[in-house]
Amino acid sequence: MTYNKITEDILNQIIDIVGTENVLTGQTELEKYSHDETEDLEYYPEVVAKPATPQEVAALLVLCNEHQIPVTPRGAGTGLAGGALAIMGGLMLAMERFNKVLEVDERNLQATVEPGVITEVFMNQVAEMGLLYPIDPSSKGSCFLGGNVAHGSGGPRVVKYGTIREYILNLEVVLASGEIIWTGANTLKYASGYNLTQLFIGSEGTLGIVTKIVVKLIPAPTRDVLMLAAFPDLETAASAVSAIFRAGIVPSALEFMERKGIEWVKEKDGVYFDLKDDAAAFLMIEIDGTDTDVIFGEAEKVNVVLEQFGCNDVLFAESTTQKDELWHMRRTMAVSVKANSIYKEEDCVVPRAALPVLIKGIKDAGAKYGFESVCYGHAGDGNVHINILKGGMSDDDWNNKLKDGIRDIFELTTQLGGTISGEHGIGLVQKEFMPIKYSAVHFQLWKGIKQVFDPKGILNPGKIF
Amino acid sequence: MTYNKITEDILNQIIDIVGTENVLTGQTELEKYSHDETEDLEYYPEVVAKPATPQEVAALLVLCNEHQIPVTPRGAGTGLAGGALAIMGGLMLAMERFNKVLEVDERNLQATVEPGVITEVFMNQVAEMGLLYPIDPSSKGSCFLGGNVAHGSGGPRVVKYGTIREYILNLEVVLASGEIIWTGANTLKYASGYNLTQLFIGSEGTLGIVTKIVVKLIPAPTRDVLMLAAFPDLETAASAVSAIFRAGIVPSALEFMERKGIEWVKEKDGVYFDLKDDAAAFLMIEIDGTDTDVIFGEAEKVNVVLEQFGCNDVLFAESTTQKDELWHMRRTMAVSVKANSIYKEEDCVVPRAALPVLIKGIKDAGAKYGFESVCYGHAGDGNVHINILKGGMSDDDWNNKLKDGIRDIFELTTQLGGTISGEHGIGLVQKEFMPIKYSAVHFQLWKGIKQVFDPKGILNPGKIF
Repeated sequence: MTYNKITEDILNQIIDIVGTENVLTGQTELEKYSHDETEDLEYYPEVVAKPATPQEVAALLVLCNEHQIPVTPRGAGTGLAGGALAIMGGLMLAMERFNKVLEVDERNLQATVEPGVITEVFMNQVAEMGLLYPIDPSSKGSCFLGGNVAHGSGGPRVVKYGTIREYILNLEVVLASGEIIWTGANTLKYASGYNLTQLFIGSEGTLGIVTKIVVKLIPAPTRDVLMLAAFPDLETAASAVSAIFRAGIVPSALEFMERKGIEWVKEKDGVYFDLKDDAAAFLMIEIDGTDTDVIFGEAEKVNVVLEQFGCNDVLFAESTTQKDELWHMRRTMAVSVKANSIYKEEDCVVPRAALPVLIKGIKDAGAKYGFESVCYGHAGDGNVHINILKGGMSDDDWNNKLKDGIRDIFELTTQLGGTISGEHGIGLVQKEFMPIKYSAVHFQLWKGIKQVFDPKGILNPGKIF
Repeated sequence: MTYNKITEDILNQIIDIVGTENVLTGQTELEKYSHDETEDLEYYPEVVAKPATPQEVAALLVLCNEHQIPVTPRGAGTGLAGGALAIMGGLMLAMERFNKVLEVDERNLQATVEPGVITEVFMNQVAEMGLLYPIDPSSKGSCFLGGNVAHGSGGPRVVKYGTIREYILNLEVVLASGEIIWTGANTLKYASGYNLTQLFIGSEGTLGIVTKIVVKLIPAPTRDVLMLAAFPDLETAASAVSAIFRAGIVPSALEFMERKGIEWVKEKDGVYFDLKDDAAAFLMIEIDGTDTDVIFGEAEKVNVVLEQFGCNDVLFAESTTQKDELWHMRRTMAVSVKANSIYKEEDCVVPRAALPVLIKGIKDAGAKYGFESVCYGHAGDGNVHINILKGGMSDDDWNNKLKDGIRDIFELTTQLGGTISGEHGIGLVQKEFMPIKYSAVHFQLWKGIKQVFDPKGILNPGKIF
C-alpha cells in the first residue's frame, strides 16, 4: 500500500472541516502526538486534527480515503503496543474533544459515552449513583474509554466481572467510507447477524473510528476486603492462584507482583509496609460483595488455601487508606519500573493454572539471554505483564538478541494454550511475533476482514498484521 | 449463487469419507432432518452425513466446495428460526456424533467439548464437580452446545452470569476451504488481532463448522431462592423489572410470564399452584449465592420493590420440588403454547426499562391486526418471546396480514433501541425483517465478511441475509 502526503490543499480542507484551532501542524505541537507509553518510539504525524462530531470524523475520512492518506486514531496515548503511532505519517485523529458522558440511563443501567472520556472520570460519575463500570486498566486515571474499546482492555476486575466485551453493548462508528453506523443494539443479548460490536472491540482502530459507546452498568458492590499474601518464591505464589477458584471463591481482583516491583514503588513513592526478607512474590486478593460477614468468610477460605500453598505472611488491609495505598502500589508499578531501567513490556496470557510454568519459563529465558525481568499482573486471569529490563545488557544484545528471548516466551505461551496479548493489543511492537501463534490462514482471514471495512487501507495502517 | 446437486459420484465420495452407516439418503430417514422446532417448515436435504472428526468435516467441505454443493450444519434441530434447514437441498452435516466432553480441566475451570454434546448433559457433568456453566436455554435437555454457539444462545441466567460470549474461549472450526483452525486462545482475555471466536458466535453456521469448543466454567452457587410474583396487568409486571436492579439486586433469573401461558402449561402438565383471579402476569425471580441469609435478605429487598410496583401476591418456593415445578412450568411453556394453537414465535429484545412499552405495543398490534399473543421470556435481559397465535385468524390473514403486525412490533423494538432477535437467531424466518433495523451498509459489511470465509457461498446458504 502506498500513501500520499497531506498537501497544502488537503490541509486547508481539513481546516475547513474542524476549524483552524483544532488542527496542529507545528513540530512542537506535534511532539505530544509522536509517542505513546510504549518504550522509546517516535513517529510524527503530518497533521493532527481534533474533530468533535461523527460528521467531522466522517468528512475527514472521506477526504483521506479519496486521497489515500493514512489516518491514525488516538485516544489518550497510554497504549503499550504502539497502536496509536502514526508510523506512516498522514493525519492523526485526536479524539480528545469527544469527552462527554452523553447519558447515564439509571432505569436501564446503561450509559452512552464519547470515546474521549477518561475511564476513571466515567467510573466515578456512575459510582456516585451506586453503579459499577468494572473495566479499569491501571492507566484508568488517564486512558480513554475509546482506547479501552480499541484494545479490548482489561484490568484487575475482569476476573470476577468479565471482560470489556461483556460491557460494551453498541458502538457508533464511522467507516473509512465516511458512513456512520451503529454496530448493534442497546441490548444485553444480541443474535441478529454477525456481531459487528464484538468485531470492533480489540480492532485497534483499523476497521473504523468509534464515536459513541453504549456501556452496560451493574449495581456496585458495597463492601470489600483486601489481602496481601507473601510467598517465598514466584512459582509457589502462582500455584496458589488456581487453587483459590477451586475452593469456590471468585475474588474481585487477584493480582501477582514480584518483590522487585514493590521495592521500586517503595523507592519512588515511599513505603507502605514492611517487606520481610523471605518474601519474593505477592498475591493481592480483593473480595467484594454486599455483606461483610460473607466477604470475611470468603477471605478466611482464601487464607486457608494460601497457607496450604506456602504463603508465609498475610496482611489484611485495615482501612480505606491502606487499601488505597496497596492499590496505588499495584497500579503505579509500571511507572516505577520504567523510572528504573530501559525496559520492554510484554503482556502474555495463559490459562491460569499454567502460570507457574510460564513464570519459570520467563526467568529461564532471562538466564539464557542475559536479561532481568519484573513480572506482575492479573494472575486470576492468567495475564502477566513482563517488564524486561535492559540492566547490564549491551545495546547490541538489547536490540538483537533480546528478540530471541521474547520469542521463547511467546512460544511457551502458545504451547500453554495462551496468546501474545491479553489486554495491551498487538499494535506495532507485537506484530512481528504474531506468526508464532497464528497461521497463514488467520492472517488471510484478518486481512480479508480489514479489506471489507477499509478497502484502501487508510485506517491505522501497519498495525496488528 | 447457483448450486449443484449431489450426483451418484459425489455421494460415493461422501460415503468414502464418513462410512455408509453414517450417510442417509432415504426419504423416511431424512424426514427427521427436514424440519427443526420452527413453526411448520419442511425442507429436505439431498443427503445427510454424520461426520465424527474435524478431518471428516474438512474432507466433506473440500468436496462440496469443489462441486458448489450447499452444506447445512445441524445440531439437535431445536432452533426456532429455521437456521438448520437445508433450504437449498444439498448436504446436511449432522453433528450428533460429535458428542464427547473431551476434558474438564478443574485446575483452569475450563472444559473442551464437542459441539454435539447436549447442553444439560454437560451442565450436569460439571455440576457434579461443583462447577457452573450457566448458559441454559429452555431446550437445554435436547439442544447441543454447538447450536448454542451458532445462535449466541442465552437462557434465564444471562441476567446475572452474562451471555454465552463470556463463556466461549476458543473454537476449533473447519472453514469452507477445508482448513482447520483454532479461532483464538484458551484464555480469559484476548487482545491479539480481530476476535474470530466472537465472530463465529452467533454466525449460524455460515462462516465455518465448529468442531471443538473451549468453555469457561465458574464455581457453582450453593444456595438459591425462587419467588413467583403475581401482578394485575402485564405492564405493571414489566415496570417492576428495572426497579429490581435499581434496588441493587442482580437476580440469577428474572422471567416474565403471561397468565395464559401458565394456564396452558396447567392444562397440559397439571397445575402446581392456585391462579388467583386478579393475576394477569407473573415475574419469576431467582436469587442465588453461597449464603442463605444474604440471599433471603436480597429476596426481602426484591419483595419491597414488588409491592411498590403493584404486585398482589408472592409465592416463595419452599422446596426443591416446588422450585423444579416452577422451572418446569417456565421451561415447557413454549411446548404447551404450541400444543394449543398454530403459532409464530418472535424473540425481541430491548433495554429492560422499555419492556412495558414493548408489551403494550405487542398487544396493540394484536388488536390492530386481529391476533392474540402469549408473551414470556427473560425480562431481566429485556428479552421477550412473543408467541403469536393463529386462533380465529383466517388463513389469508395469517399468511399475509400478520407480517404487517410483526413488522410493527419490530419497528417498535428498533425505536426502543432493541433488535430483532436476542437469542434465537435470524436463520430463515427473520431475515426478511432485518432491513427494519439494519441499513444497506450493514448488509454490505456482513456479506463482505461472509465472502472472506466462504467465497463460494456453500455454508448454510440463504440464512441471516
